[in-house]
Amino acid sequence: MVFVKEVIDETIMEKLEIEPFSSTYKAFCVADMGCSVGPNAFYSTHNILDAVEKKFISEGFTPDQVPQFQVFFNDLPFNDFNTLFKSLPSERKYFTAAVPGSFHGRLFPDSSLHFVHSSYALHWLSEVPQEMLDKDSPAWNQGKIHYTNAPELVVEAFAAQFAKDMGTFFDARAKELVEGSMMVLTMPSTPDGIPLSNVPIGILLNHLESCLVDLAKEVTLISTLSLVYLERMLFNSIHLKLFLVQGLVSEALVDSFNVPMYSVTPKEMRQIVERNGCFSIERMEPTDCVPDPDNPATGYSITMHSRAGLEGVIARHFGAEIINELFERFLERMDDVMLSLLSCYAQGSQLTVILKRRCHN
Amino acid sequence: MVFVKEVIDETIMEKLEIEPFSSTYKAFCVADMGCSVGPNAFYSTHNILDAVEKKFISEGFTPDQVPQFQVFFNDLPFNDFNTLFKSLPSERKYFTAAVPGSFHGRLFPDSSLHFVHSSYALHWLSEVPQEMLDKDSPAWNQGKIHYTNAPELVVEAFAAQFAKDMGTFFDARAKELVEGSMMVLTMPSTPDGIPLSNVPIGILLNHLESCLVDLAKEVTLISTLSLVYLERMLFNSIHLKLFLVQGLVSEALVDSFNVPMYSVTPKEMRQIVERNGCFSIERMEPTDCVPDPDNPATGYSITMHSRAGLEGVIARHFGAEIINELFERFLERMDDVMLSLLSCYAQGSQLTVILKRRCHN
Repeated sequence: MVFVKEVIDETIMEKLEIEPFSSTYKAFCVADMGCSVGPNAFYSTHNILDAVEKKFISEGFTPDQVPQFQVFFNDLPFNDFNTLFKSLPSERKYFTAAVPGSFHGRLFPDSSLHFVHSSYALHWLSEVPQEMLDKDSPAWNQGKIHYTNAPELVVEAFAAQFAKDMGTFFDARAKELVEGSMMVLTMPSTPDGIPLSNVPIGILLNHLESCLVDLAKEVTLISTLSLVYLERMLFNSIHLKLFLVQGLVSEALVDSFNVPMYSVTPKEMRQIVERNGCFSIERMEPTDCVPDPDNPATGYSITMHSRAGLEGVIARHFGAEIINELFERFLERMDDVMLSLLSCYAQGSQLTVILKRRCHN
Repeated sequence: MVFVKEVIDETIMEKLEIEPFSSTYKAFCVADMGCSVGPNAFYSTHNILDAVEKKFISEGFTPDQVPQFQVFFNDLPFNDFNTLFKSLPSERKYFTAAVPGSFHGRLFPDSSLHFVHSSYALHWLSEVPQEMLDKDSPAWNQGKIHYTNAPELVVEAFAAQFAKDMGTFFDARAKELVEGSMMVLTMPSTPDGIPLSNVPIGILLNHLESCLVDLAKEVTLISTLSLVYLERMLFNSIHLKLFLVQGLVSEALVDSFNVPMYSVTPKEMRQIVERNGCFSIERMEPTDCVPDPDNPATGYSITMHSRAGLEGVIARHFGAEIINELFERFLERMDDVMLSLLSCYAQGSQLTVILKRRCHN
């Protein structure tokens, strides 16, 4: 994420207001929203604090006049904070705290933060849109697990949930951030006018959907076989595994499963920020994940990455037992999607938004 | 701990300075040092915040002028913060954060705390005094696991380590607490002039020592038996258990084990606070654990309580395998010590110290 770092560095140098720190504030408080267990959060924090420090020095502060830093790592209460704490960099130059709770609500006292950062967390919705949970609703998403290639009503339900979630996020942060302070948000994005099915998140969710649907179909088939077949299946490991997940992956269970994830367009993001009204957009641009030529993405690395992100939500719906079988299929069939995945990486599939808390609002 | 609550309530009402909150500060920040996994920390925090709120109201603040509260729960990084977060009271009226790290060093930015609380944590030393680790030192604590009934050199080494630890604790807190703010510390204590062997902590450590020493002696005896005996022992569960812990509880291992715990006297505590110089003693008094008549202490409850507090430090030295065997013995022989334990409860075996951060220091 070299490009994100450059954008953040430049904006901090140009736009961060440090004048209040010569008089009003003592510590510079940073919150990382959706930190998971590290180490990405530590890396991002390190980069931000480096840029902030440079800005202070460039304004004539001596190194010992630069404020002390306090970093709050936030994630949901069931995040593994024990692992986070054990892996904290020993050479860090900031005071550390962890804050459990949903960033869709209040987490900090009024005007207590000077910088908020969030990377690859805001695309997770607080919940599946309610319409998707009603079997009789026209938005019931039969045979599908996401809004990619779905009917318009489904797409609208996801978009509305995202707008609502970002609304509560901005409302809470507007109260917690001091006036003039900054917020940097990076998330997966769909460029304006491009269908979701052409960006990585859409391609991967479609791929996952096809693996899940196939699994459900095969399981349904097997469950109708007579018990005479059972003995033979026991000698066939693939069928045995399918038999073991029987009941866990039914077609009905796939119908009621929706990955609570949204890939916002720049246009939508601008509208949501403007509707809130407490923040000015200092910078908003697609910041591509530049592929590392020494370490190119492989089917295996993409599968592991997808598994890390998705297995929690899948296991909560289907049970943890299906995870291995599902991602073995996901990996086996990666060839089907690698070409489209690799060719779409340069199309602006992530967005970085840099906001400033307006004064007197 | 009803009596502690009363002392804290009274002192907050009489001594807490709230004037700066009408202008300078927005949130009232409380730190609980050595919180473990709750729920005691939540109970104490609730009581303190209730008392602080009452003080604000009594000074003419309306309920919505009372500052927001932010509570930082601190313990060592290997504490189980996941459990702490999962058991946070849902009805709490404060923002929560957790801070991993030793309270013998800095944990917070300068002047960022308004109240510090610690209950039953400061009696844990940061480490066993160095002299105790040298087999050739005159302070080598052979056959003993603590300074109770030990030679004067051993007692002095423990006292010096405690004074050093409290020194680093007070140095760090003096920087972190705003001027005029308060600190309430409750810990096991030995009344001036009473030998440690007459207070609960000394009696219990002596009891543990005797169980450990016996275990080591029996194991040493068994390890000298010929293998011919092994077969017979396998039919005797007690001897089998002893055989299994063989090598884990040697006499040498007992000699090198010291429980890093100190029970301070009021006189010593006063000297340590005065040596630091940044805090005034607002109140310092023995606050007895009043036994609950509806729920009297039993051999079982005392054993479970001792095990909860001590098994970590024992397991790190001897291995977790000995814990069950050791505390089974501890419980079996509780009759030997119950009388002295029950009769000494009323003798001021805990100390509550309420300090105020001096101004301009």
